[in-house]
Amino acid sequence: MDRRSFLKKSALGGSAAAATALAAPAYAQGQRTLTMVTSWGRGLAGVFDSAQRCADSINAMSDGSLNVEIKAAGELVGAFEVFDAVSSGQADMYHAADYYFVGQHPGYAFFTAVPFGMTAQELVNWYYHDGGMELHDELGEIFGLKSFLAGNTGAQAGGWYSKEINSPEDFNGLKFRMPGLGGKALGKLGASVQNIPGSEVYQALSSGAIDGTEWIGPWADEKAGFQEITKTYYTAGFHEPGAGLSLATNRDVFNELTPAQQKIIEVAAAEAHQWNLAQFLANNGAALQRLQAGGVKVLEFPDSVWDAFGQASQEVLDENMGDELFKKIHDSAMTSMAASSAWNNLSSGVYTAQRDRVRG
Amino acid sequence: MDRRSFLKKSALGGSAAAATALAAPAYAQGQRTLTMVTSWGRGLAGVFDSAQRCADSINAMSDGSLNVEIKAAGELVGAFEVFDAVSSGQADMYHAADYYFVGQHPGYAFFTAVPFGMTAQELVNWYYHDGGMELHDELGEIFGLKSFLAGNTGAQAGGWYSKEINSPEDFNGLKFRMPGLGGKALGKLGASVQNIPGSEVYQALSSGAIDGTEWIGPWADEKAGFQEITKTYYTAGFHEPGAGLSLATNRDVFNELTPAQQKIIEVAAAEAHQWNLAQFLANNGAALQRLQAGGVKVLEFPDSVWDAFGQASQEVLDENMGDELFKKIHDSAMTSMAASSAWNNLSSGVYTAQRDRVRG
Repeated sequence: MDRRSFLKKSALGGSAAAATALAAPAYAQGQRTLTMVTSWGRGLAGVFDSAQRCADSINAMSDGSLNVEIKAAGELVGAFEVFDAVSSGQADMYHAADYYFVGQHPGYAFFTAVPFGMTAQELVNWYYHDGGMELHDELGEIFGLKSFLAGNTGAQAGGWYSKEINSPEDFNGLKFRMPGLGGKALGKLGASVQNIPGSEVYQALSSGAIDGTEWIGPWADEKAGFQEITKTYYTAGFHEPGAGLSLATNRDVFNELTPAQQKIIEVAAAEAHQWNLAQFLANNGAALQRLQAGGVKVLEFPDSVWDAFGQASQEVLDENMGDELFKKIHDSAMTSMAASSAWNNLSSGVYTAQRDRVRG
Repeated sequence: MDRRSFLKKSALGGSAAAATALAAPAYAQGQRTLTMVTSWGRGLAGVFDSAQRCADSINAMSDGSLNVEIKAAGELVGAFEVFDAVSSGQADMYHAADYYFVGQHPGYAFFTAVPFGMTAQELVNWYYHDGGMELHDELGEIFGLKSFLAGNTGAQAGGWYSKEINSPEDFNGLKFRMPGLGGKALGKLGASVQNIPGSEVYQALSSGAIDGTEWIGPWADEKAGFQEITKTYYTAGFHEPGAGLSLATNRDVFNELTPAQQKIIEVAAAEAHQWNLAQFLANNGAALQRLQAGGVKVLEFPDSVWDAFGQASQEVLDENMGDELFKKIHDSAMTSMAASSAWNNLSSGVYTAQRDRVRG
């Protein structure tokens, strides 16, 4: 029986943990290479950057005792195979959007985004101060993962369409790329929803395999080149109001690291979240102007469509409430969101409205 | 001539830097204690927590090679003396709000907040991706500091008043506590503005030395106990829409550290910013409900007052434009803010308005 199997199968949790702690210094003497598989094509704007940021910080702060090596999607395993690869120990860590793994457990949706759910700031409030991180860890225990929030795209754009959307009926029969529970909600409006890795979306859209797609927002979408295929762009979307990315380490591997190395991974991931969110938000404004200058038409969904999004989103959440852990995560997240949102409306919301009004 | 003086006075910047790099390993062998002075009373809600978060992360990630020891305001130097203490080498690092130091240079205001300036998210976008961090460093070079953003209170509340504010004239003769350029703007409305360290505000308000005060927001304000003195509370304010806190290390001390230790300080500070902002925002909603349940009346300033805030704020900024570096920081910040704000209105702004409308 190898060490990893022993740790997994041992009923003596306390003794196993103690053995790990004693063994740890051996790792600290030399260099430990950690293979990070990702859901991202190499260099994919923003999302790959976030994985790179995590790796660079970990390597630099550990003074070389850790050496994270990044594998882009397809280099070791496919974009959506990273979860199973790390859970099984085939790779040491992954960087991905956890809502790709709602098939493993629907509760993972909350650690990226759920439709009509949290903004990035609401997610962070919940994650670090209202129990979100602990629930992420509870999911991780099931699958042998130690997960940390490690990136964020901000509120995702409604996406690129082959035609304008004037009523909920316009989604009927539409072939659309959208992952996670948002995609399931769109399916309720009659769309034929597909999940396609980021690096493959351009080809799917240009070949007509799909009629439309959401990806991230103006900056990343421009880099992906969707404006070359269609000029109809909806800026605000319902499906991912603040999409978190995760860094997940195989739990046995994590437990074998020193406390300092563990803390380095935790803090590097959190820092990457803030840095990455700011990266998207700092770049989107200028990118949208370039897109518009290139002929892209920027639109908003009408209220009737938002109403339909809202109803479909609630149905999707309701369908999963039979799972006890999903319900626990849902209730925790929604309670925190309501409190965060109420204060935001009274403070930052009033302030920015007054700033816009006074500054004109 | 001691080493520090040599480094400061040497014209051979390159050689001095090389000597520092060579000397660094000597520090890495043992434990280096770094004395952190702060502007905060020990345990002051949120702000002291942020200093503690930085210290804990640095100590844990450095595996004991760094040992940050926190001194609360008054334990080594006074709340507003921390800047000079670290600049001169009396202490190794400080945790404070950099707008306390507009007397040293008015450009420091932008690294906490300027009236009618950036929200916390806009600050982060600018800081990490639009040149803010580099400008912070340019200021630091003047004063021998290596500074990093290391905390944030979020949008600060308008504050506590002995009477309702129904017109700009109500500020005439009002004795009010407000630091930074916001305080200078309030002075233009005829207020008698004072800057008082956080730990001393309760006493000043209860003794009648001041008629009113802003401090932070519902959670920190409740802990400070202002609701025991007055029940009139304005939630949205103009003066600090996202107040950043800074961790600044004496630049010679910083340069003597290893690259890994330097990176640990940088990443720990950034992580503390995100964690601290979320701490305030996660706690404010419930705190406001408790304050209201205790009889606090929650108000918003009328538009005429916001108009006066806006005009006074612009006057204060304009008065400082003669300083070249101030203008450079101002222009950089405002350009970034405009781009961030435009995208936010189209994405997160539309989304949250629709979420509020649809969910009711």
